[in-house]
Amino acid sequence: MEEDINHNLDKAVTWVNKAAKEGAQVICLPELFRSMYFCQKEKIEYFDLAETISGPSTKTLGKIAKENKVVVIAPIFEKRAPGIYHNTAVIINTDGEIAGLYRKMHIPDDPSYFEKYYFTPGDLGYKTFSTEFGKIGTLICWDQWYPEGARLTALKGAEIIFYPTAIGWHPSEKKREGKPQFDSWMTVQRGHAIANGVYVAAVNRIGLEKENENSAGIEFWGSSFICDPQGVIIAQASQNKEELIMAEIDPSRIEYIRRNWPFLRDRRIDSYNGITERFLEEND
Amino acid sequence: MEEDINHNLDKAVTWVNKAAKEGAQVICLPELFRSMYFCQKEKIEYFDLAETISGPSTKTLGKIAKENKVVVIAPIFEKRAPGIYHNTAVIINTDGEIAGLYRKMHIPDDPSYFEKYYFTPGDLGYKTFSTEFGKIGTLICWDQWYPEGARLTALKGAEIIFYPTAIGWHPSEKKREGKPQFDSWMTVQRGHAIANGVYVAAVNRIGLEKENENSAGIEFWGSSFICDPQGVIIAQASQNKEELIMAEIDPSRIEYIRRNWPFLRDRRIDSYNGITERFLEEND
Repeated sequence: MEEDINHNLDKAVTWVNKAAKEGAQVICLPELFRSMYFCQKEKIEYFDLAETISGPSTKTLGKIAKENKVVVIAPIFEKRAPGIYHNTAVIINTDGEIAGLYRKMHIPDDPSYFEKYYFTPGDLGYKTFSTEFGKIGTLICWDQWYPEGARLTALKGAEIIFYPTAIGWHPSEKKREGKPQFDSWMTVQRGHAIANGVYVAAVNRIGLEKENENSAGIEFWGSSFICDPQGVIIAQASQNKEELIMAEIDPSRIEYIRRNWPFLRDRRIDSYNGITERFLEEND
Repeated sequence: MEEDINHNLDKAVTWVNKAAKEGAQVICLPELFRSMYFCQKEKIEYFDLAETISGPSTKTLGKIAKENKVVVIAPIFEKRAPGIYHNTAVIINTDGEIAGLYRKMHIPDDPSYFEKYYFTPGDLGYKTFSTEFGKIGTLICWDQWYPEGARLTALKGAEIIFYPTAIGWHPSEKKREGKPQFDSWMTVQRGHAIANGVYVAAVNRIGLEKENENSAGIEFWGSSFICDPQGVIIAQASQNKEELIMAEIDPSRIEYIRRNWPFLRDRRIDSYNGITERFLEEND
C-alpha cells in the first residue's frame, strides 16, 4: 500500500474490476487495504485513518460490486464511535448493499504490530454471510492462529473462510527466522481447512513498509493462497508481486471430503468445556 | 505388527531397551502395539485381544521402564469391564508404576477402521502426566484431527503431545488420494504444535496388514515424526522401515516461541462457547 489513501482505494477498484472481468464472484482485499500498515507505531493521529460504515470505502466499493454483480470483502479501519475503533471486514453484496460486518476478534500486540492500541476487540463473534455464491466466513490476520475461530466459523456453515491479512518479516529476523515463520503461517491455516473441511483463502499484502526513514519496517510476505478442504493449495501468489489469484470453490468437494473423513461427526462436544478457560492448572 | 501378540510384546521390549540405551527418556510405542490392527473387521473374537490394566503388557513394560529409568507410553486395547473396552495409552513412570491412563476420546468409524465397534469413547477427558522428564500429554490417532483435543492438552500444561497412531492408505486409493491424505495428516498435527506452542510426536505403524488373504488391507504409512513448537520437523521416520526416531525437547524453546508469538495470551475465551455445540445453524 502507499501513503495516499485515495490512491489505495483507486487501486482496489481497479483490481476488483479486473477480478470481476476475469470471472471472480467473491473478491477479498487485504487487511486494512486503505492505508499503509500504520500499527507499526502508536501514534494518535493515525486514528484519523478510521472511517465509518458506511463510509467512503464501502460506498465506492458498493458501487463497483453492484456494477459487476460480485461480492466484495473490504477490510477497513472502522470508526464506530469516538474511542471505539475496530479492525473490520465489511461484506458487500452483489446489490452493492452491506451484507454484514466481521470485527477482528483476536488482537495482536508485539513489536511493530501494536494493534491493541488501535483496535477494540470484536464484539460480533464469529460470522458467516449467505451470498448468491455461497456461504462465506471471514476472520482477520491474527485470528488465523486460533483454531477456535476457524471451528466456530465452520460450524456456522462457512464453505470458505477468508483471512485478510497483513503479516511479514522483521527484516533483521528474516534470514534466521523467516522460513519457519512463513511455514507456520501456511501450515496452521491449511490445518484449519483440514480440521473443518472448508476452503481457506488468505489474502496478504506485499512490500516493505516503513513507518519512517529510520525504522526497519516490515517486509510483508505476500504469498496469498487458496486451499481446498483437504489443505491442498489450489492457488498461490508470489512473495513480492501485486497480483490477483483466483480459484473455483466446489461445494460438492466439501461434502466429499467430509464424508470420507467425517471429523465433524465425531467431535466430543461433551468434553470441550475447558476451551473457555485461560489455562487449566493441575495440582500434580 | 504380527499375528503373535507375544512376539509384538517382545519386539516392543527390544526397541524400548534400544531406545533407552541410545539416551531416550520418554519412549512411545504405536497405537495398539500388541496386535495387528484388528479393527479392519468387526469380529467378536477380537475382543479377546483386550487386556486389563495392569496386565501382561504393563507389567512387562513396567519392569523394563524401571530397569532403564525411562518413561514408557504403552498404547493398548484395554479391558475395563465385560462390555467396556477402550483404546488406551498407559503412562508408565521411571519406577515402573502406572502414572495414569489416557483413553482415546474421538473414535473413528469408516471402512477398514471399524473402531466404534470395539472402543467405548474415553471418559477421562484430556490428560497430562508429570514425569521426571517433563509434562507429557497423550492423545491417540483419530484425536489428531481435533484441534480441541490438542488445545485442552496444551492448556493442561503439556510440553509435548504424543499421538500413538495406526493410519495408512487403502491400497486402491493410494495412487489417487495418497499424497493429500498423508500431507493433511502431517499438516494438521504440525498445526496443533504451532497453535499451542508445544512439541508434537506422532508414532505410526508400518507395513501392509490384511485381515485375511482376500482383503485389500491397509498400508500403514509410517513416517512417525517429532516437530517443535513452531511446527518444524526435527525427526522423521521412513514410510516403510521399522525404526527408532529420537529428538531432544527443549522447554526453553517453548517459552521462546510463545513469547515471540503470544497466541495463548490473546485467546478470546469469552467467545468460544459454541465449541460445545454440534453445529450452529443460522436462519439466514
